Amino acid sequence: MTKLLIDPNRLWTSLAEMARIGATEGGGVSRPALSGTDREARDLFAGWCRQAGLEVGIDRIGNMFARRTGCEPNLAPVMFGSHLDSQPAGGRFDGTLGVLTGLEVMRVLNDLGQETAAPLELVNWTNEEGWRFLPAMIGSGAFAGVFDLDFALTRADAEGRTVAQELGQIGYNGPEPVGGRVPDAYFELHIEQGPLLDDARIPIGAVGAASGKRRFDVVIAGRAVHAATFPMDRRRDALVGAARMVDEVHRAGSVHAPAGCATVGWFQVVPGSRNVVPGQVAFSVDLRHPDEGTLAALDASLRERFTAIAGELGLALAFGEESSYPPTSFDAGCVALVCEAAREAGYNFREITSGAGHDAVYMAGVCPAAMIFVPCANGVSHAEDENVTPEAAAAGAEVLYRAVLARAGARVISA
Amino acid sequence: MTKLLIDPNRLWTSLAEMARIGATEGGGVSRPALSGTDREARDLFAGWCRQAGLEVGIDRIGNMFARRTGCEPNLAPVMFGSHLDSQPAGGRFDGTLGVLTGLEVMRVLNDLGQETAAPLELVNWTNEEGWRFLPAMIGSGAFAGVFDLDFALTRADAEGRTVAQELGQIGYNGPEPVGGRVPDAYFELHIEQGPLLDDARIPIGAVGAASGKRRFDVVIAGRAVHAATFPMDRRRDALVGAARMVDEVHRAGSVHAPAGCATVGWFQVVPGSRNVVPGQVAFSVDLRHPDEGTLAALDASLRERFTAIAGELGLALAFGEESSYPPTSFDAGCVALVCEAAREAGYNFREITSGAGHDAVYMAGVCPAAMIFVPCANGVSHAEDENVTPEAAAAGAEVLYRAVLARAGARVISA
Repeated sequence: MTKLLIDPNRLWTSLAEMARIGATEGGGVSRPALSGTDREARDLFAGWCRQAGLEVGIDRIGNMFARRTGCEPNLAPVMFGSHLDSQPAGGRFDGTLGVLTGLEVMRVLNDLGQETAAPLELVNWTNEEGWRFLPAMIGSGAFAGVFDLDFALTRADAEGRTVAQELGQIGYNGPEPVGGRVPDAYFELHIEQGPLLDDARIPIGAVGAASGKRRFDVVIAGRAVHAATFPMDRRRDALVGAARMVDEVHRAGSVHAPAGCATVGWFQVVPGSRNVVPGQVAFSVDLRHPDEGTLAALDASLRERFTAIAGELGLALAFGEESSYPPTSFDAGCVALVCEAAREAGYNFREITSGAGHDAVYMAGVCPAAMIFVPCANGVSHAEDENVTPEAAAAGAEVLYRAVLARAGARVISA
Repeated sequence: MTKLLIDPNRLWTSLAEMARIGATEGGGVSRPALSGTDREARDLFAGWCRQAGLEVGIDRIGNMFARRTGCEPNLAPVMFGSHLDSQPAGGRFDGTLGVLTGLEVMRVLNDLGQETAAPLELVNWTNEEGWRFLPAMIGSGAFAGVFDLDFALTRADAEGRTVAQELGQIGYNGPEPVGGRVPDAYFELHIEQGPLLDDARIPIGAVGAASGKRRFDVVIAGRAVHAATFPMDRRRDALVGAARMVDEVHRAGSVHAPAGCATVGWFQVVPGSRNVVPGQVAFSVDLRHPDEGTLAALDASLRERFTAIAGELGLALAFGEESSYPPTSFDAGCVALVCEAAREAGYNFREITSGAGHDAVYMAGVCPAAMIFVPCANGVSHAEDENVTPEAAAAGAEVLYRAVLARAGARVISA
């Protein structure tokens, strides 16, 4: 294996320092988008960028761009980064690893006195996770023109506070226009959030595609009656119907493993009293598959099964709130640069499909894009025990560094 | 049919006036035990009792006894009544009908200038419903010696307020000792809370027995992982396991319909996020059957099935909080008095088993007891659209009046 050009200790130290912001007792972090902890994380990141001589710009949706100029400053920039917000009781690496390996790329360029032809921009996108504000990936989506800026700024959290209010509150309502420009390319390093690389002990995933998503809510109405007295054969128990639907979702998804996923994650029972038969249940269905046709067929067949189950049990069925995006193919040239970087650095790698949505999915609609995955322990993510080894983080940073350099037009100076 | 001795209009007017206390928009009532609305209901009831010349005593757990003396005041009293507290968004008749038909019994005795040999006591029991304070039927349970008074007074609601504090707050921490005396008999009129009488158009149910209850909570632990990325075949999805268990409960209960019931009413999913596979689910299982052996077998077989399902899916399973009581047989003599009263008054009646627990179940451990059921529309209860016709309420009151008189040793004066 080639000697590392990036500094693994510096990277690891920065990750540990960032993980103190919003740290949870269980070893994770909780940094809701545009909260006080998100501001702290942004401030720390901006300070590090300025120390590295980068110019930090902020756009009107709060996306942060840390710029390093190139020998040919009029070229479109090579962009890379991810996000610093987290899930509730989420992990230390989801998003953060992509931002801080990007920072390490900038730092090692400085160490080595390297210049690139194209300018570089390291980005921290606003509200990737989407648990405080829906939809997810609001910053990159607005940059990519998927969402109108007005739409993005007026999204509200559960307490009714809007993105615009909270950007103002934390001082990240920047002056720069949102999007309207085409980067030369976009790279994003991220933890896999699945177990395939960790299982196979492969340090680098070159992400060739991302699964599409279909998500919808289901509301089932039956009849709330007394649990001790109302005969079983005359009940319209919304929970029994919902339970059979959950099982259908799981079985339908299992047919498409490992590429496809089907999940009921949100599930609410009304009235939720121990001696009342549930009169209403609402739940979400989340479907992922890299093939649009398969995704559409899965969606349609589940709705058909739900209708049949509701009919058998005398339940009313309604389909609610939907959100979806189609499968994405990343740019073959950028993916090849990732593979080549891994090869040069002496890392095993494999092509892999991303099950989750990432900011890179929206950026792929704007410019050539690719992602680098590194393994996380047992594939666990969106949880406090999400974990990455120092070696995996370093390998990812090294590959990101080499891929960015190759795209931006400079040569790696062998140390 | 014999002419009614009770006054159906007076009864219906009192029911309507009581239903205004804690009235909900959906036409029901919400009167949590020992809340401000419970106090209002108690005050209204106590006022009516005093107007009827009854002496109102209150014991240390807040049970209210409205007394009418007899020709032989040293005889043990014939007791009858029910409760004025309600479920959240509950109905206007559950409990209240038993108290106010009891009041009508006292009023018609006055109208007719009748005296009984034994004294009469009309009772309003504290916290029958058990949704604010667990366990249910705390007032009658304490009277019957099922619960220590200290235990009963120290039960706390979800906000940590105890029964003792709230009794003091509403001024119903009475001076009388709790229980320690044996009534001559106890009668309770109640809505059926099931559809059998309403379906069969039978106005009176003579309740010969009450089902036993077995209730326990179940906690299932799996692994919270990312819904978009974690392969289906490696998941430990707590919701999928719980869903299969819910279906088992329903199927097992259906085998025992209509006498047996099996219900999952409370059901909580953690973390409950649309893009996270549920890591934990907790739910309640409520089993009812008039035969103790059947109930025990149902309980054991479900726990066995749950263990098997958890094993198949790699889930951890724990059984939590339990509450149960055995089936109850009511007193054959008291049940015969109810049947005879219905026959005399010219009402069709049938013997019926109560699925639900009632204060009468605890009282049956202290003295001879029986219940009178009247039909409620479609068997719906614990819901805002719980309904009873004026004719059904009047029929129940008439039968209660005649049964109480027969037990207490006086004669009905034909009008």
